Amino acid sequence: MNFCSDNVTGVAPEILAALAAANRGAAMPYGADAVTARLERKVAEIFETEVAVFPVATGSAANSLALSVMAPPYGAIYCHEAAHINVDECGAPEFFTGGAKLVDLAGADGKLHAGDLAAALAEAGAGIVHHVQPAAVSLTQASECGTVYSPHELHEIAGLARAHGLKLHVDGARFANAVAGLGCSPADLTWRAGVDALSLGATKNGALAAEAVVFFDRALAAAFGYRRKRAGHLFSKMRFLSAQLEAYLSDDLWLRNARHANRLADRLAQGLAGLPGARLVYPVQANEVFVALPEVAIAGLLADGFQFYRWPDAGLGAIRLVTAFDTDPADVGALLAAAERHAGRHRADRAQNT
Amino acid sequence: MNFCSDNVTGVAPEILAALAAANRGAAMPYGADAVTARLERKVAEIFETEVAVFPVATGSAANSLALSVMAPPYGAIYCHEAAHINVDECGAPEFFTGGAKLVDLAGADGKLHAGDLAAALAEAGAGIVHHVQPAAVSLTQASECGTVYSPHELHEIAGLARAHGLKLHVDGARFANAVAGLGCSPADLTWRAGVDALSLGATKNGALAAEAVVFFDRALAAAFGYRRKRAGHLFSKMRFLSAQLEAYLSDDLWLRNARHANRLADRLAQGLAGLPGARLVYPVQANEVFVALPEVAIAGLLADGFQFYRWPDAGLGAIRLVTAFDTDPADVGALLAAAERHAGRHRADRAQNT
Amino acid sequence: MNFCSDNVTGVAPEILAALAAANRGAAMPYGADAVTARLERKVAEIFETEVAVFPVATGSAANSLALSVMAPPYGAIYCHEAAHINVDECGAPEFFTGGAKLVDLAGADGKLHAGDLAAALAEAGAGIVHHVQPAAVSLTQASECGTVYSPHELHEIAGLARAHGLKLHVDGARFANAVAGLGCSPADLTWRAGVDALSLGATKNGALAAEAVVFFDRALAAAFGYRRKRAGHLFSKMRFLSAQLEAYLSDDLWLRNARHANRLADRLAQGLAGLPGARLVYPVQANEVFVALPEVAIAGLLADGFQFYRWPDAGLGAIRLVTAFDTDPADVGALLAAAERHAGRHRADRAQNT
Amino acid sequence: MNFCSDNVTGVAPEILAALAAANRGAAMPYGADAVTARLERKVAEIFETEVAVFPVATGSAANSLALSVMAPPYGAIYCHEAAHINVDECGAPEFFTGGAKLVDLAGADGKLHAGDLAAALAEAGAGIVHHVQPAAVSLTQASECGTVYSPHELHEIAGLARAHGLKLHVDGARFANAVAGLGCSPADLTWRAGVDALSLGATKNGALAAEAVVFFDRALAAAFGYRRKRAGHLFSKMRFLSAQLEAYLSDDLWLRNARHANRLADRLAQGLAGLPGARLVYPVQANEVFVALPEVAIAGLLADGFQFYRWPDAGLGAIRLVTAFDTDPADVGALLAAAERHAGRHRADRAQNT
Repeated sequence: MNFCSDNVTGVAPEILAALAAANRGAAMPYGADAVTARLERKVAEIFETEVAVFPVATGSAANSLALSVMAPPYGAIYCHEAAHINVDECGAPEFFTGGAKLVDLAGADGKLHAGDLAAALAEAGAGIVHHVQPAAVSLTQASECGTVYSPHELHEIAGLARAHGLKLHVDGARFANAVAGLGCSPADLTWRAGVDALSLGATKNGALAAEAVVFFDRALAAAFGYRRKRAGHLFSKMRFLSAQLEAYLSDDLWLRNARHANRLADRLAQGLAGLPGARLVYPVQANEVFVALPEVAIAGLLADGFQFYRWPDAGLGAIRLVTAFDTDPADVGALLAAAERHAGRHRADRAQNT
Repeated sequence: MNFCSDNVTGVAPEILAALAAANRGAAMPYGADAVTARLERKVAEIFETEVAVFPVATGSAANSLALSVMAPPYGAIYCHEAAHINVDECGAPEFFTGGAKLVDLAGADGKLHAGDLAAALAEAGAGIVHHVQPAAVSLTQASECGTVYSPHELHEIAGLARAHGLKLHVDGARFANAVAGLGCSPADLTWRAGVDALSLGATKNGALAAEAVVFFDRALAAAFGYRRKRAGHLFSKMRFLSAQLEAYLSDDLWLRNARHANRLADRLAQGLAGLPGARLVYPVQANEVFVALPEVAIAGLLADGFQFYRWPDAGLGAIRLVTAFDTDPADVGALLAAAERHAGRHRADRAQNT
Repeated sequence: MNFCSDNVTGVAPEILAALAAANRGAAMPYGADAVTARLERKVAEIFETEVAVFPVATGSAANSLALSVMAPPYGAIYCHEAAHINVDECGAPEFFTGGAKLVDLAGADGKLHAGDLAAALAEAGAGIVHHVQPAAVSLTQASECGTVYSPHELHEIAGLARAHGLKLHVDGARFANAVAGLGCSPADLTWRAGVDALSLGATKNGALAAEAVVFFDRALAAAFGYRRKRAGHLFSKMRFLSAQLEAYLSDDLWLRNARHANRLADRLAQGLAGLPGARLVYPVQANEVFVALPEVAIAGLLADGFQFYRWPDAGLGAIRLVTAFDTDPADVGALLAAAERHAGRHRADRAQNT
Repeated sequence: MNFCSDNVTGVAPEILAALAAANRGAAMPYGADAVTARLERKVAEIFETEVAVFPVATGSAANSLALSVMAPPYGAIYCHEAAHINVDECGAPEFFTGGAKLVDLAGADGKLHAGDLAAALAEAGAGIVHHVQPAAVSLTQASECGTVYSPHELHEIAGLARAHGLKLHVDGARFANAVAGLGCSPADLTWRAGVDALSLGATKNGALAAEAVVFFDRALAAAFGYRRKRAGHLFSKMRFLSAQLEAYLSDDLWLRNARHANRLADRLAQGLAGLPGARLVYPVQANEVFVALPEVAIAGLLADGFQFYRWPDAGLGAIRLVTAFDTDPADVGALLAAAERHAGRHRADRAQNT
């Protein structure tokens, strides 16, 4: 019963089937195949606008390649201090952009707030050669704290970005979970709100290894193909990337998977929040639960064999539980039952100590 | 009937089955899974020595990441002028190394020859700050012309490299075809001959998208993990890369597949060489046939629906035919029959003109 | 009467004379001249140890080139958030290192404090591929706030750096002012305290354009020559860089110049601190005075033609006054007199308002 | 008597005087000074068009910074195989561009010929993601072989460049010698012929260390300031760079100096060409003489204390003699007299052997 991350999961059966189905006969390489051609249309339909779509295999590749056409080497990219691009990609954005600088800002609930961005931009020194030049903003949707940006929040940030000549990127490793959580259309959470490029994640939500860089500002796509190739991210047997993404976006699979994960996260949150000594650290708006528990409960759950990470960044006693498309509701039930048992001991201990 | 490349192929059934088999339950991400652990042992057995192994998804990634730990930004990497890293990767080695320079040398049959390398090193200006510093040699095995380096040739080049303090890399996108063609052991073609790092290809020979960077000089591996991550080439669901490679190297699949491809290339070569007006451009030692044919034969084959590329670099009237693990012998027979028919017309034309 | 910066100054007469003196006959280029040979000995004497010395023309070049041999592209460089390398070099360290990340830490009085560094290193994720790897620490001596690190403070930070395998760099754009301010030996402020490399500034303190990268850990020098050349920072007529530095370090010129500047900064600080409504923002330990003044005084001084910068980073009403080797004591006197006059009005205003 | 290079020279007296003259009072840094403002006007007058001008200190910096705004990281820069940027800058263009590729072409007399460029462009694979994309052409004027491109030759190459969407850069380390040699206007050798950017050298021709990047296509200048700063090439005391360039371009100093050097090269060429066993390797059109001499003459001259380099790239027995703005005509006379004496021995030897 592994709640460590949604990347411990395997492949959704629909996607595995799509891989097998794509394995028929020869196909021209590097994207000149029928599946890839269909994929771009599919994405356009789902987002209700013309797009340029580039499949890649990892989220780090998607993010950094996207940013590499949005910021020059002397550019600044604004993000939350907890952003995956800032702390978990071993400097990938710096590598792909040729040394651009991530300007990381604090912000409650793992989100970049318009006011903080405005303040940072005001003192950025735009136009002054001594300073890196504001070039892009990158948000994570859903955020690293399992929260989501509302369309209104996106609008506000996008407005600031546009006013200062910055491009807006969204790291959507868990974009499906955000769409499912908000109940908005994909368009409302992207180009209608002012987003220029999206890293549309699929791996965490059922794919083997597939993400799509989606450009709403299609001018950004001009150099992307060269940069993807040059970074070793152009697959020769592209049909197998595209097939994953096609299946992912077909028959609502991406949203069905995400809703399942979100629902179970919600159940976890509700169940845990009521326990003595427990506290939800962030609002649970997607498929991640950050919760502070008494040490006896944490230790007990680990001893029972539940797998998850302690999350010191979220405060004393905090752990992170991640649900996924394939999480068994029974496992959630088992965890809640065990937690209640362990927390009960906590209550008993405390009663005794009083 | 597609002879364009071995990358138009799909996935070998054994490898697809391995993907399905790996899709059971949760697995810790980023290589901390059981399949990946097994893979390193498997590679060590096959190469009869301790190795460090890093799965990646594309050949360009394998090559450039390997080179990035073998050459500093101010380094020179010596290769054949037709090398894939030099002409077909959109500058990937330059990107990954931070701007090292590829020094490309001519050489018969697509191979770098020790004498030419020695001459280039003699005038390289080692130790002089004005010049990029000799750092690595990269060979392609089998070469871009479908030829192979013998162990003796490798020894000679490795000796030169070692004497000048250079590391030796092998781009083995078609390494299996070279092993199969030469009938040597993998060890004889690598570390025993002085090779420090190998890009061990699997994609062209049956994998979906999987290559392994294999370090025989394991000191080179120290920084590799950071560079792979930073380049977006560390898969979260690594087990699915490793499973491909494990299946590939199990039960001799890689060599069985390669032998099949080589055999059919040989059959093509023998069949075409005897046609009037035909000429094999390079020795056929792996799974590629470069042959000059009368225009009437080329045009006829294309009109018949056979797919392949004209190859002007190999001279007037040259085409390239590539066989693969899944090439149907019947297709080879059909192509030979058609070629004979069209070449017969060529003979007739010429007879008439005399 | 320009107190904007010590880079508004011209060239010290001794250094201009040295340039003229170096202009005799032909000299072999790129450092193979007699002056450059003498310079390395001179630096070794002054620092009482063997060193490797590389003249360059700008402080940004000195800093970034030094860091480029101290941190890999996937490295992290720890510095104060106000560090020149972090905010005033348009991303130069990122460029020269191939994308390393500056981890900027807050710290009172413009200084990195050992406790904060220790905390940052504790959570850096050394050895984990997802995170940039701690590689170097860079301090500014004297700091951007005009304060200095004592030998003890350096020792503490160097101890931490060594314990975590990091190299220690000092940006010494105003190193002479620090030496003069502390009354320590250059050795005590560098290698004896654990410093591996120093950007030894001369430009702000009397040179035309000359800095020296000094390696105490001479192993770091191995690749420096190539990186300097590759960055366009190897001067063909090197003798003219070396001559500036030789004159600078001869007859105590560097320290005499620095003492002059420090003395006048001290006089400014003492004179201003006593004014009504005035407050020194940072201890004045070198040649920079950060002082908060009543707006009427600031406006008055500017109207009088005194040139200096408002310094909002140092708080409300803060300005920065920089003295230099050629600052006329009479100008300092004039500024103090004017400030007193304007501040008197402030007092009067306030008295009136009470 | 040093004929090794024009970079063994010191500083022209007019330029040294200008440095002293610029050393009056304070001046705002980083180019916000009066001298720098005047310089841009001066360059515009001399080139008879609006320009953007950026002083830097070295030729490698000028070239690579210029190229960094003319080619993307995935770009190809076409140049002669002997180009300074290709062989003598330790990979600087690769560093500054983020890994662009120099495509080096052979060409008689050290010059890139339009036909060879056309052939290379025809097979470059523009628009195909596997290949680096043609972005710029860089010529050296005067060339590394002491020859010059006529306006007609420039026109032809510029036409090709424009037709393929490439920018045209000229490395003018010895541009003054080319202007003096051809007797053309600076405009005729640059923008009127289609040149977009010029590295206008001064160092070899009398400056201490000063070059100007001159953009005729001023759109290229937009990002240059950031890249110059980020590379550590923005001088704080800029007035001292600008003062060198201003003096250089005033009162025809640059052309007077170049004419002097060219005249003496011509005298050397004429004197040496007539000697028995001597042969001019390249036409002498600027200030460099490549001449093959009998070994006895070379050895004799070296024994006499004349300094120059053997130049094996120019063939057996070749040496290079470079004259400069400060070459003493008496030294030229002395060298010719000595050469005649030594070559006489050669004749005598040969007579004896017959």
